[in-house]
Amino acid sequence: MTRNVGIIGLGHVGSTIANYIVTGGFADELVLIDTNEKKVNADATDFHDAMANLPFHTNITVNDYSAIKDADVVISAVGNISLQKDNKEHDRFIELPFTKEAVKSVSEKIKASGFNGILIDITNPCDVITTMYQHFTGLPKNHVMGTGTLLDSSRMRRAVSSELGIDPRSVGGYNLGEHGNSQFTAWSSVRVLGQPITEVAKQRNIDLAKLDEVARAGGYTVFHGKHYTNYGIAAAAVRLANIIMSDARSEVPVSNFHEEYNTYLSYPAIVGRDGVIEQLHLGLTDDEKEKLATSANYIRTRFEDTVKDM
Amino acid sequence: MTRNVGIIGLGHVGSTIANYIVTGGFADELVLIDTNEKKVNADATDFHDAMANLPFHTNITVNDYSAIKDADVVISAVGNISLQKDNKEHDRFIELPFTKEAVKSVSEKIKASGFNGILIDITNPCDVITTMYQHFTGLPKNHVMGTGTLLDSSRMRRAVSSELGIDPRSVGGYNLGEHGNSQFTAWSSVRVLGQPITEVAKQRNIDLAKLDEVARAGGYTVFHGKHYTNYGIAAAAVRLANIIMSDARSEVPVSNFHEEYNTYLSYPAIVGRDGVIEQLHLGLTDDEKEKLATSANYIRTRFEDTVKDM
Amino acid sequence: MTRNVGIIGLGHVGSTIANYIVTGGFADELVLIDTNEKKVNADATDFHDAMANLPFHTNITVNDYSAIKDADVVISAVGNISLQKDNKEHDRFIELPFTKEAVKSVSEKIKASGFNGILIDITNPCDVITTMYQHFTGLPKNHVMGTGTLLDSSRMRRAVSSELGIDPRSVGGYNLGEHGNSQFTAWSSVRVLGQPITEVAKQRNIDLAKLDEVARAGGYTVFHGKHYTNYGIAAAAVRLANIIMSDARSEVPVSNFHEEYNTYLSYPAIVGRDGVIEQLHLGLTDDEKEKLATSANYIRTRFEDTVKDM
Amino acid sequence: MTRNVGIIGLGHVGSTIANYIVTGGFADELVLIDTNEKKVNADATDFHDAMANLPFHTNITVNDYSAIKDADVVISAVGNISLQKDNKEHDRFIELPFTKEAVKSVSEKIKASGFNGILIDITNPCDVITTMYQHFTGLPKNHVMGTGTLLDSSRMRRAVSSELGIDPRSVGGYNLGEHGNSQFTAWSSVRVLGQPITEVAKQRNIDLAKLDEVARAGGYTVFHGKHYTNYGIAAAAVRLANIIMSDARSEVPVSNFHEEYNTYLSYPAIVGRDGVIEQLHLGLTDDEKEKLATSANYIRTRFEDTVKDM
Repeated sequence: MTRNVGIIGLGHVGSTIANYIVTGGFADELVLIDTNEKKVNADATDFHDAMANLPFHTNITVNDYSAIKDADVVISAVGNISLQKDNKEHDRFIELPFTKEAVKSVSEKIKASGFNGILIDITNPCDVITTMYQHFTGLPKNHVMGTGTLLDSSRMRRAVSSELGIDPRSVGGYNLGEHGNSQFTAWSSVRVLGQPITEVAKQRNIDLAKLDEVARAGGYTVFHGKHYTNYGIAAAAVRLANIIMSDARSEVPVSNFHEEYNTYLSYPAIVGRDGVIEQLHLGLTDDEKEKLATSANYIRTRFEDTVKDM
Repeated sequence: MTRNVGIIGLGHVGSTIANYIVTGGFADELVLIDTNEKKVNADATDFHDAMANLPFHTNITVNDYSAIKDADVVISAVGNISLQKDNKEHDRFIELPFTKEAVKSVSEKIKASGFNGILIDITNPCDVITTMYQHFTGLPKNHVMGTGTLLDSSRMRRAVSSELGIDPRSVGGYNLGEHGNSQFTAWSSVRVLGQPITEVAKQRNIDLAKLDEVARAGGYTVFHGKHYTNYGIAAAAVRLANIIMSDARSEVPVSNFHEEYNTYLSYPAIVGRDGVIEQLHLGLTDDEKEKLATSANYIRTRFEDTVKDM
Repeated sequence: MTRNVGIIGLGHVGSTIANYIVTGGFADELVLIDTNEKKVNADATDFHDAMANLPFHTNITVNDYSAIKDADVVISAVGNISLQKDNKEHDRFIELPFTKEAVKSVSEKIKASGFNGILIDITNPCDVITTMYQHFTGLPKNHVMGTGTLLDSSRMRRAVSSELGIDPRSVGGYNLGEHGNSQFTAWSSVRVLGQPITEVAKQRNIDLAKLDEVARAGGYTVFHGKHYTNYGIAAAAVRLANIIMSDARSEVPVSNFHEEYNTYLSYPAIVGRDGVIEQLHLGLTDDEKEKLATSANYIRTRFEDTVKDM
Repeated sequence: MTRNVGIIGLGHVGSTIANYIVTGGFADELVLIDTNEKKVNADATDFHDAMANLPFHTNITVNDYSAIKDADVVISAVGNISLQKDNKEHDRFIELPFTKEAVKSVSEKIKASGFNGILIDITNPCDVITTMYQHFTGLPKNHVMGTGTLLDSSRMRRAVSSELGIDPRSVGGYNLGEHGNSQFTAWSSVRVLGQPITEVAKQRNIDLAKLDEVARAGGYTVFHGKHYTNYGIAAAAVRLANIIMSDARSEVPVSNFHEEYNTYLSYPAIVGRDGVIEQLHLGLTDDEKEKLATSANYIRTRFEDTVKDM
């Protein structure tokens, strides 16, 4: 019983997630897995060195797949950010040759463990990898999801809130599609100050296209300033894990499987202990619908290309 | 008013501290300062990208010393961990040629800001740098302290708790002296299971010298496994900052100025909003007293050598 | 510096608020004021008895108005719930003869203290009392607000979320007007599942009028089941205090002064360290506009009747 | 999976515990049980009315014993504080005629549910009722414990910390024996400022007997000032529940079964997910040993008298 979370991949993102869970007291059992034994043991010891000064206690297990059998949530943060080093465009597909093999292998170990909780994927390219996780683990489609545009939406909300001088939590709305270059802000879904942002933008002469750029530019500022991003994505992933464990049934834009497009893609859904419980139906504009279809098509094609020779 | 914290140095340690403060909601105003503009802006943006998914809100100011004028606490995490790269012994003095110049410059800017809160130093070599901070800022001695052996004590408590299968928070006692190679566990101060650990060790055949090694080895595991340590020290520093801001008057082993030895060194003290409020008087053994004097002497000599030509 | 909160009135509501602040570590200084010395001392000692087992420390001052001089936020929870005992309708005006005198006296003491932070009123009838607080303290209108329909909106969100099986935090929208019998749900502002609730209600055959009843019935269940309500209102008040202290600039429906109606009434606003920073402009239906005007008129009339002979 | 807590008895104590769990996000499933259906439903609705304004989500089930089958922890806060009304001495045995029948009935329902987690008793007289719970539920002795002198120890720590101007968390040591009039502070176990309190008391002319009175007087201040106590005991109980759920293996003075005295009594133990894991052996003085034996004898006798005709 009690809360059991597994994290696979203890790079910048995975270890930041683990630290947030440890300092926040969100899990009772934390299973940390990484092929770099030295790194995962370093992090585990560092967490243990923190515990005398923390309000909560967390039990940590290292590199033991059998310990995720009873996990409520497993988070995949497998990655190889060094592959992104000279990637000016920050195209997340640059990591795919590495991550696709890693994910296949991880999936087999997850499956072998008997894990039957909810799998959250952060590993990039997020939507393709999420699809692969579902494909290789055989877990129900609604039990596998990616953080997807939960991060992109937060960036959009940061840009909007900064423009208007308000709390990002008081900005509603979503970025949709691929957690990658084909994603877009569904401005028709964004509401601020009690109104559609399109209205507010007219009144205040705000250029939404520029806000889109500001949101993206923020991502680049982070990536080019430190060669990885971790705090924003960790906050998103831990919030999602907590939603699942507490069966909160919250509305979040995550990468979830859409029959209509026959692929995973980010679109808001109600998420709880049974994973994706209900998918929303936004009143998108025609232009947004087209962008979404394009993004979906791109993900599906990339997935098919990727798995056909595996 | 409300809580205002400054962090100087946004490397692995400083940014982990900032993240714990942001996710925990411990400060209302957070001032982040680093000479690497790209890095500090990357972290600030990453924190902003997290905020839509966090329960608390924190306002962040970047690279503006004037904003620390009203800070309750300023934490120095200035460092250059790359200097430690080929340092097998992990001698923290290897960073001194870099940090002494940085700290002098930072002190002048802190002084110019009009800051009159509490200064917590993490920058290594911790005791020498803490002394320098007091020297160069002119702040009252009890308003400047170093995290010192708060981390070493946590490591000792981790090692003891692991041996006995108990919560590290249920291990009392202290490591004393330099936050460096001359520090030592004052076993006479360590109590577990309602008894002095020396008694428990006899009953259970526990070799305390070995536990000392385990505590140190843990530090090496972290350092050599990831080339820096951050989570343990961040938990210690944030706990200390919270103690100060809430005027908790808690007992903690920090680097504080001791008239007797005419130097900063780590020894438990009562800490609150007025900094170091009261120094403890432990009943150390003769051997421990000697070790402490040696450690104190080492720190004082290194400080004098360092500042004489500055 | 650091966070300073005053609470005036330590009945069911005030003491529950104090406890949430103490257990959550949201304030460093907490000033508790009540005319019942025995009760306020009992609560203060009870909080002190809790502190050895809590992660945070809070300093508590009892019955000293001078200690609120530097408070960031003062919360009025003055009340006399026993007056509500045989009040089948739960008309909050039944408390007015008692509270109006209490509030005048409290206002004079607040004024004399030199307090210049933000005043949050919970005392009922909320909107009239909030108006009186502003009137008698002379604080700027945007520095005085009432919790108002923040609680009613939470009840509406609870009713809607329960009907749809989703997180109440995933229900957007507001109850407006008087925190009393003339308040109403502005259904045009309520959005769920990415759509206006009016659309969702049509699709799923949900009777919004019935949901309104469920929301109200919940309030009665609480009031008649224990003769007071405290947990819902305390969560609302503490959230509001935290928003102010962290200058979060969040969108919340609170009782704030509206020039248009020349009265305090609940309507969403952006709230931060400077109190009410910006008022929203909702696209209400004609029917809702009329209800709001009626509610505003009722509050203004009651206020004028109340103060004319004071 | 995830955290599941049951609370039986939603009076002042039980509902304050529930509220701390809900606001702190410590449980995912909370089962509330009380014979007063109106009161327990009022509290449940009040918690639901809070949730839109809280950072965490908690699912609440009311009056369904089958829902505690999978509970990690069940807390008994059954009581009838009105029986204490004219009880000048605050003798907790005054509640026994009521609580013994209630506890027998509750035990049968707990047993029937199939519950096999850890049972924490707060119901008074605590040690006798804890013994009864173990007796009637048939749960393993180490899986049943009472909060016992965890509260008395906190009161002692409050009195000591107030005398010395330090954090109560920086006062170590225990009150032992019955959670009632025969309990006593084991001053030999109390340490402050790095020394035994007996030493500090000599140096500073502190009368420990007077501190004992101050600790007790605090309890009376609370009880006579509001006719119940809730915040101190709730903090103790929730800390204990968290220790159990996170398997923290912390040292806490709880009412646990001692073979030597053939009874439950409060004495520090290591507590984790398997309940009482290890009992401490304090180096008590002869006087303290005698007091403990007297207290143990009193509890055992009262238990035997109580159950012989049930």
